[in-house]
Amino acid sequence: MRQDILEYLLAHKGEFVSGQKISEHVGISRTAVWKHIHALKKKGYVIESFTKKGYCLQAAPELLQPDVIRKGLQTKVLGHTIHYYEKLDSTNNVAKKLADQGEPEGTIVIAEEQTGGRGRLSRSFFSPYGKGLWFSVILRPDFSPMEVSKMTLLAAVALTKAFRKMGLTGGGIKWPNDILVHNRKLVGILTELNASAERINYLVMGIGINTDISQQDLPRELREAATSFAIEKVPVHRAALLQEVLRQLEAQYMLAKESGFAPILEEWKNLSCMLGQMVDVILPNTTFRGKAVDLDETGNLIVMTDEGPQKVIAGDVHVRPAVG
Amino acid sequence: MRQDILEYLLAHKGEFVSGQKISEHVGISRTAVWKHIHALKKKGYVIESFTKKGYCLQAAPELLQPDVIRKGLQTKVLGHTIHYYEKLDSTNNVAKKLADQGEPEGTIVIAEEQTGGRGRLSRSFFSPYGKGLWFSVILRPDFSPMEVSKMTLLAAVALTKAFRKMGLTGGGIKWPNDILVHNRKLVGILTELNASAERINYLVMGIGINTDISQQDLPRELREAATSFAIEKVPVHRAALLQEVLRQLEAQYMLAKESGFAPILEEWKNLSCMLGQMVDVILPNTTFRGKAVDLDETGNLIVMTDEGPQKVIAGDVHVRPAVG
Repeated sequence: MRQDILEYLLAHKGEFVSGQKISEHVGISRTAVWKHIHALKKKGYVIESFTKKGYCLQAAPELLQPDVIRKGLQTKVLGHTIHYYEKLDSTNNVAKKLADQGEPEGTIVIAEEQTGGRGRLSRSFFSPYGKGLWFSVILRPDFSPMEVSKMTLLAAVALTKAFRKMGLTGGGIKWPNDILVHNRKLVGILTELNASAERINYLVMGIGINTDISQQDLPRELREAATSFAIEKVPVHRAALLQEVLRQLEAQYMLAKESGFAPILEEWKNLSCMLGQMVDVILPNTTFRGKAVDLDETGNLIVMTDEGPQKVIAGDVHVRPAVG
Repeated sequence: MRQDILEYLLAHKGEFVSGQKISEHVGISRTAVWKHIHALKKKGYVIESFTKKGYCLQAAPELLQPDVIRKGLQTKVLGHTIHYYEKLDSTNNVAKKLADQGEPEGTIVIAEEQTGGRGRLSRSFFSPYGKGLWFSVILRPDFSPMEVSKMTLLAAVALTKAFRKMGLTGGGIKWPNDILVHNRKLVGILTELNASAERINYLVMGIGINTDISQQDLPRELREAATSFAIEKVPVHRAALLQEVLRQLEAQYMLAKESGFAPILEEWKNLSCMLGQMVDVILPNTTFRGKAVDLDETGNLIVMTDEGPQKVIAGDVHVRPAVG
């Protein structure tokens, strides 16, 4: 029904068509037409409406259709197979199901909107229609499950490099894989894996990047904590950003496969905004303060305290700049 | 059909019944009856047959029915919920599906026979009807996926302790988790996990223990490599063995949860038959020789070579006693 209305408006793009005409064409009431128009506006369609003149579609949002993504894509493997959805509970869930069924490395699952987007440690992830890149990549590295935490550091490196390429030059990585701009989160990464004790069967890397979210779009509890390309006043074309992210991700991934994670951990240190800073490390039962000084070879954060160096392992730990 | 024949024989246990009578009762030909009897014998039913007298069921194999397992079970959590099957492709596959659907920690999946039993590194695992314990345990530890290789060492410790309790006193652990008796494998362990980068969602530990397999039962390629309780002349009651294995597994698992893996790795060293021995380490592209001297805190094997200590990480590596 909504698709019928949209097609009718698209066929008359730039012209005013009356609600009556649309209602007759589609076979629903004018009130129902109005409701669908309202929903389309929320999805990013720019539709003017004037009493007596009717509705006029002025601009359609650019969706992340597979052909748009593929055109100009510079990768060898990542993103060549694309599963595109307008709405999903979570792209990671769909990617995991596909991977279970044997979907090969490089396939991506992308949605304009996630209704059950998930972040690390079972947190939910805000992913409204058309206002960000919400996607998951299936990888099948011949790595041990012990290397998974380094894969999340790799993702943070690739994303930061892609963002700088797209003109967002501020920001840096907060351990382990948050990307902060003006101290607010721009990105969520959720890496999930299916493995035996010796080898990863597949790894699903879910990435959420806030592009067009405005300050008003954000739920109240995220207003101080999150940002977006739009909020940072760096306009970005979603498909171009995705292409660059996939290119960087593939480059770092190939590097890890060929040379191991050492060069990636070095790059992580260069891009981090945390090393050299005083931090509070909040564990389930205790908190301590120290200076974040290094990353060890397995990706743990080394924090120098009064009692000597402490190794911080990713998990139920929260690290924040020292306060007070 | 086979079940009908079996029930008829069970109803006349110890008596001879003619093939003709069975054939009339079940409604199939005498040749078909003969084929089913043959299949039942293969499953461990002791059935005598004499021309003109017919068939006489003398003993039925003791199956691993849930009520048999539960009676006398000493665990708090492991094995209280049992999914029992006569035949499965792989208990790990079923356990993973159950875990995906939210099955709680401690549930076990057990089969009299696996048609597609799997071992480490995609090897197949021989698991004939009624001649071993083929089962999987679902665990949901609040561990990082980095700890999974230590979980397989934990399983080897628990199994070795259970076997000693059941009277099989020889044998020891070959790194990482083979249990050898007279240099032949008694057990297969396949640990699989579903995790995020920070935390394990669930872990399925598949365990195969050869109990009643005879030398003749073994496929030719396993005759030099595998053993069983029967071959070692240590008769064992399968349900009692399973109960003891679950008890030991739970005890070690609780210990790891409360005190970390350090005491388990120490126990592993005590039970190992490899430490102090010269070994060949066979990697995909190279081989080296040295003395297995220690286990590090993450469960890697330390091998002392002429060029100094080498760390051996579980995966595509094969470690064997030095030959030649």
